[in-house]
Amino acid sequence: MTSLRPQAGRQPGEASQGSVSGGDTVSNAGDGFERLFNPRGIAIIGASSNLDRIGGQPIRALLAAGYCGDIAPVNPRYETIAGLRCYPAAEAIDVRCDLAIVAVPAEAVQAAIEGCGKAGIGFVIVLSGGFRETGAEGAAQENLLARTARRAGVRLIGPNCQGMVNFPDRVFAAFGSITGELEVKTGGVSMAFQSGGFGFAIVSLCATEGLGFRTCVSTGNEADVTLPELLEAMLDDPGTTICGAYLEGVPDGRRLMAVGRRALDAGKPILVWKGGSSASGARAVASHTAKLAGRHEIYRAAFRQSGIIEVEDIHEMGDLFKVLEGGRLPDGNRIGVLSISGGSGIVFADRATAAGLDLADFAPHTAERLAAVIPAFGSAANPVDITSGVFNDISLFTRALEIVLDDPNIDQLALLLASIPGEIARAAATAIAGVAGATRKPVLVAWSVQRARAEQAYAILEDAGVPIVPTPVRLASAAAAAAVYAARRRSLAGRPPWPGVGDAKGVASGPTGAFDERRAKQWVASAGIPVTRDAFVARDADPDSAVEGLAYPLVVKVVSPDIAHKTEVGGVRIGIRDHRALLDAIDDVYRAVSVGAPSARIDGVLVSEMAGDGVESIAGVVNDPTFGPVVAFGVGGIFAEVFRDVTYRVAPFDAATAREMIAELRGRALFEGARGQTESDTDALVEALCVLSRFAWAEREWLGELDINPLLVRPRGQGVLALDALVVPLGA
Amino acid sequence: MTSLRPQAGRQPGEASQGSVSGGDTVSNAGDGFERLFNPRGIAIIGASSNLDRIGGQPIRALLAAGYCGDIAPVNPRYETIAGLRCYPAAEAIDVRCDLAIVAVPAEAVQAAIEGCGKAGIGFVIVLSGGFRETGAEGAAQENLLARTARRAGVRLIGPNCQGMVNFPDRVFAAFGSITGELEVKTGGVSMAFQSGGFGFAIVSLCATEGLGFRTCVSTGNEADVTLPELLEAMLDDPGTTICGAYLEGVPDGRRLMAVGRRALDAGKPILVWKGGSSASGARAVASHTAKLAGRHEIYRAAFRQSGIIEVEDIHEMGDLFKVLEGGRLPDGNRIGVLSISGGSGIVFADRATAAGLDLADFAPHTAERLAAVIPAFGSAANPVDITSGVFNDISLFTRALEIVLDDPNIDQLALLLASIPGEIARAAATAIAGVAGATRKPVLVAWSVQRARAEQAYAILEDAGVPIVPTPVRLASAAAAAAVYAARRRSLAGRPPWPGVGDAKGVASGPTGAFDERRAKQWVASAGIPVTRDAFVARDADPDSAVEGLAYPLVVKVVSPDIAHKTEVGGVRIGIRDHRALLDAIDDVYRAVSVGAPSARIDGVLVSEMAGDGVESIAGVVNDPTFGPVVAFGVGGIFAEVFRDVTYRVAPFDAATAREMIAELRGRALFEGARGQTESDTDALVEALCVLSRFAWAEREWLGELDINPLLVRPRGQGVLALDALVVPLGA
Repeated sequence: MTSLRPQAGRQPGEASQGSVSGGDTVSNAGDGFERLFNPRGIAIIGASSNLDRIGGQPIRALLAAGYCGDIAPVNPRYETIAGLRCYPAAEAIDVRCDLAIVAVPAEAVQAAIEGCGKAGIGFVIVLSGGFRETGAEGAAQENLLARTARRAGVRLIGPNCQGMVNFPDRVFAAFGSITGELEVKTGGVSMAFQSGGFGFAIVSLCATEGLGFRTCVSTGNEADVTLPELLEAMLDDPGTTICGAYLEGVPDGRRLMAVGRRALDAGKPILVWKGGSSASGARAVASHTAKLAGRHEIYRAAFRQSGIIEVEDIHEMGDLFKVLEGGRLPDGNRIGVLSISGGSGIVFADRATAAGLDLADFAPHTAERLAAVIPAFGSAANPVDITSGVFNDISLFTRALEIVLDDPNIDQLALLLASIPGEIARAAATAIAGVAGATRKPVLVAWSVQRARAEQAYAILEDAGVPIVPTPVRLASAAAAAAVYAARRRSLAGRPPWPGVGDAKGVASGPTGAFDERRAKQWVASAGIPVTRDAFVARDADPDSAVEGLAYPLVVKVVSPDIAHKTEVGGVRIGIRDHRALLDAIDDVYRAVSVGAPSARIDGVLVSEMAGDGVESIAGVVNDPTFGPVVAFGVGGIFAEVFRDVTYRVAPFDAATAREMIAELRGRALFEGARGQTESDTDALVEALCVLSRFAWAEREWLGELDINPLLVRPRGQGVLALDALVVPLGA
Repeated sequence: MTSLRPQAGRQPGEASQGSVSGGDTVSNAGDGFERLFNPRGIAIIGASSNLDRIGGQPIRALLAAGYCGDIAPVNPRYETIAGLRCYPAAEAIDVRCDLAIVAVPAEAVQAAIEGCGKAGIGFVIVLSGGFRETGAEGAAQENLLARTARRAGVRLIGPNCQGMVNFPDRVFAAFGSITGELEVKTGGVSMAFQSGGFGFAIVSLCATEGLGFRTCVSTGNEADVTLPELLEAMLDDPGTTICGAYLEGVPDGRRLMAVGRRALDAGKPILVWKGGSSASGARAVASHTAKLAGRHEIYRAAFRQSGIIEVEDIHEMGDLFKVLEGGRLPDGNRIGVLSISGGSGIVFADRATAAGLDLADFAPHTAERLAAVIPAFGSAANPVDITSGVFNDISLFTRALEIVLDDPNIDQLALLLASIPGEIARAAATAIAGVAGATRKPVLVAWSVQRARAEQAYAILEDAGVPIVPTPVRLASAAAAAAVYAARRRSLAGRPPWPGVGDAKGVASGPTGAFDERRAKQWVASAGIPVTRDAFVARDADPDSAVEGLAYPLVVKVVSPDIAHKTEVGGVRIGIRDHRALLDAIDDVYRAVSVGAPSARIDGVLVSEMAGDGVESIAGVVNDPTFGPVVAFGVGGIFAEVFRDVTYRVAPFDAATAREMIAELRGRALFEGARGQTESDTDALVEALCVLSRFAWAEREWLGELDINPLLVRPRGQGVLALDALVVPLGA
């Protein structure tokens, strides 16, 4: 791992890290975040002589950590604090400070920021709370802070945050438990958190499991600097090899996606844990598409589209940091497994298979060569049980590793070492480090022994960059996630980025008012998606001329601005085979609706040709406040609601993305001709989804929701057909 | 935790633990496993003077651990080993040994067992490998060992196992890494493993996270003593408070279920990790039911039916040990959450909600009282964010705990402490211990700080029996699993046990030969499940008399012993409305089948009344080699295969069990009248499933597989109707 520790002779904050960028205002801060992460001096506004207090904790931590820039406490009540000269105001500081930590009461924060601006300080971390989190008045105060900072030429982190730590440079510009974590190993992991206490707990626990950290920032209320902006700055930091974030929401989803794509280009994975999934799904909206779309599912789709890796627990995040930070990715999803205990191979296989890895059969040559190395009571098939007997002759262990890694059917290798300790562990580690150095394939280790019982072995593997995870199941999950990430990276490489970062969203200009089925279908047809041939018959009109040219069998559906679910009020008749039956059906519909929905305004009926065979799907659009237009696609009919088998992508997108959507459905086999059915026209379906995504983007200024339900996917060669549609403009 | 450490003056192995049972032979071993777990002396047959070797490791471990019984090495080549008198043969031992460890080459094991029998030793642990795991010849040798042991009056653990450890009594009768784990804390957790190396790695890792252990046994090939038998013995052991197992398969599934039910009665939870799920599902069988039934799903159903808790990773197992071992269970699934960091409350809520817990609203009174305690920037709704500010006055923290625990809407309380260290942690721990002692509700803690940074606080909570888990998400999973276990325990309390432990399984006596639809439906009807009214029309017979009394519309289906999937060869016509159409349909079917299945023998057609409305389901039976008859129930039609929404229960069972099956389906809403459909007759469905389960049990000697597909579940009051059926006798 690259170290950020200052070279001999270099001053803290000296710009040795290459150019950085990310700021968008001309300011004291310059055009990047280098001076935030690695300031030449730090002012503490509201410094406390009680080093247990919030205004004292950063001073104690900076001193204890050995930060080698200037520390400038600011408090008019003291001459010195902890032996440091204390200044009466920021403007009085006579050393070079790039960063100020503000720990004053909420009402004094604005003045503190102004003072920092005058003092030429570029970055201010506001620890103080009492703003947006307390209600509307606090939010107004917070907006004022942001404007003040902009005028003062200062970039503002927070308010209501826990600060920032740069471990290699000993910048402990924070309060709380992290200020006691002085022994955290330095490394290439940088993180940003929308919950400081929780974020620093992640760091603490991951450090316990051996991870090394670089820069970690608690973003608080994000009045000015946002989490995506900090992630961008971390991508630009040469010492950061991998990034992580805990977030609960971003105002501009497409900016986060752009950061994800930039991370793919930079070769630095971003792991994101999105909190708040359980609050989703409760929005009261009219269309099925929108009902099915929880906000979390849209974030998840955006992560997939932009190569961001989603995680859902601290251990999962830590394990993936370890597996990915070395930069080795598997070329495919085939994994070879060597265990010294049968059970660990089995549980690894269980989880790995469930997560999509393939415990591939070895090439015949491999099996022959392994048989010469493994005891009779072991197993030479994948997962290999080499048994602990191989440690009687460590060269046998080494041979087994080499043989499996040589196999052309294997993309990565997992070694399951149970809890071997001491000298055997050291010998095994030496062998693994040697073999790992001679291959490009990832070599991963699961090992449950306490570090204290195998100190040397851990050090050997860590020096060799071999990831160690404590359980076989966690290793299987991490290896599978790495394979998914590698595949996504390959697949996303050639795709166009999405438009719309920072773009204005819907403003409700464009079509307004109620959309009945006729009008909705016209928009669907105009988008380029085929709709059923049909004719409107007004309430008192003669149907004969209207339906001329339509081919029997026909369907009759009531047209009313007041009826959303036509079937439920008896407003639909199907399978009409002749003229007589058509007239009866129209009468039937009017009669049923007068009972089922007595107060509804009835415009007339829509007479449609009945569709032939096909698989019913549902395709739609929601205009999400964070991501803008999003396309949904899923299994149709009653099963859409019962199984919620729906997938999402941010619009617009290409055919490869549409194919991913289909492949993600649990019910994808329906389109492949399950159980003797005809194979569906998935090419036409892919085209329809792409067309819909472009339409959703083009009409984003007014289109709130769109449902094509059902979208009939007909047999190969026959295309798709929209049987019904619903449109809801923004603001309706 | 009760300690098994010998009292002053008591001899090791003295039967102070109450009566135990479990053995089923009259033998040296007596009638229980007390002398295995706590032997008065231990012989090591094949003792090695090199204490690194398998025959030396137990000697070194027993000496180092301070085992206070006699250690009797047996090896004719030595006078002494490690200062201990070495005997030439087991028969020569002149101290009281209850247990022998055998570490000799495979070919010498039989003689060693015989020697132990003569020496009056009751239990033999055979570490030696080279038996069943090497193939057919080894299996024959192993059978011989089992017979030898029975004749010699010896109970045999293994062969090919890693031994046994009783931590409180310092019995390290094992080899491998566990022999170095002398510092493992003693406690109430006992475990059995079908993979020794992996099992002891579980112990090692759980111990690192603070769990205390009692007895752990590696069962190896189980030539004699089986894992369920050992679990029973552990349930009988007064010092064991909770049991765990890693298993890959048992020969008699109903015996394992009986152990589960006994554990419920004993108030000692059993956690089982079943390895091998990924090997399932590949059996080539004829019926849909059997195709859908992976072996793992049947084990999972059996666990649910018998109150066994299934786990799938080491951490999950360790966390549940902690949460359950104190014996406090929540009365419902409502949980109150107090965090000092907003993010941890959110991720807890995400996982808890997904796992079925309810973050219930507090009673109005609670919210009022909390508002007086929590800072303005905190949150008094569940999950409560008390903020780290409450530690400025620890009495506020204590008050907040008490207020939430008092709330009648809360069944348990989770405290999320992020990574607070040192003195604050100690104060918080003292407050938590005090409050936990004054309530019957479970109080659980998530805490990510390194133990070294909060040693005192950990000790205070552990002494108070308050479980500590390192992450909020893991705590949410464990709390949810505890609530599920508690509910299952309440629900299983009154149910009858299953018959059939050790019962003879199917012997293929009874009906044989091919079952066409007619014959299969007769059996279904005889079981008490309504079938469609239908008539068989032989190939050249006149249909008119046969169909007399059937009401149109009708269905015609080909009857052939060679056609399993009638629709796929054109062998079905539906919606036949009159006599003319019936004759046409019969002709059509013959013509289509002569093309679609030209070589099939055609007996005739079955003419059935067409069923009305209803939800298509699939109900069936598989006769599992491990569990005997098992009933499957799932969503029907094409979706059965696409979504595999199927659930299982071991037969026979009662109505409550049948209701659970329906409730477990993802598609359960189909039966509740989803999206305007009529509510189904679930009472009739429940009755049909119970009837089917009794039929499956009664006919187990010959019934291999049975499919009712579809079983139409009609609207409330109209019952269920079997539209088609398939029966496959055992051995067909």
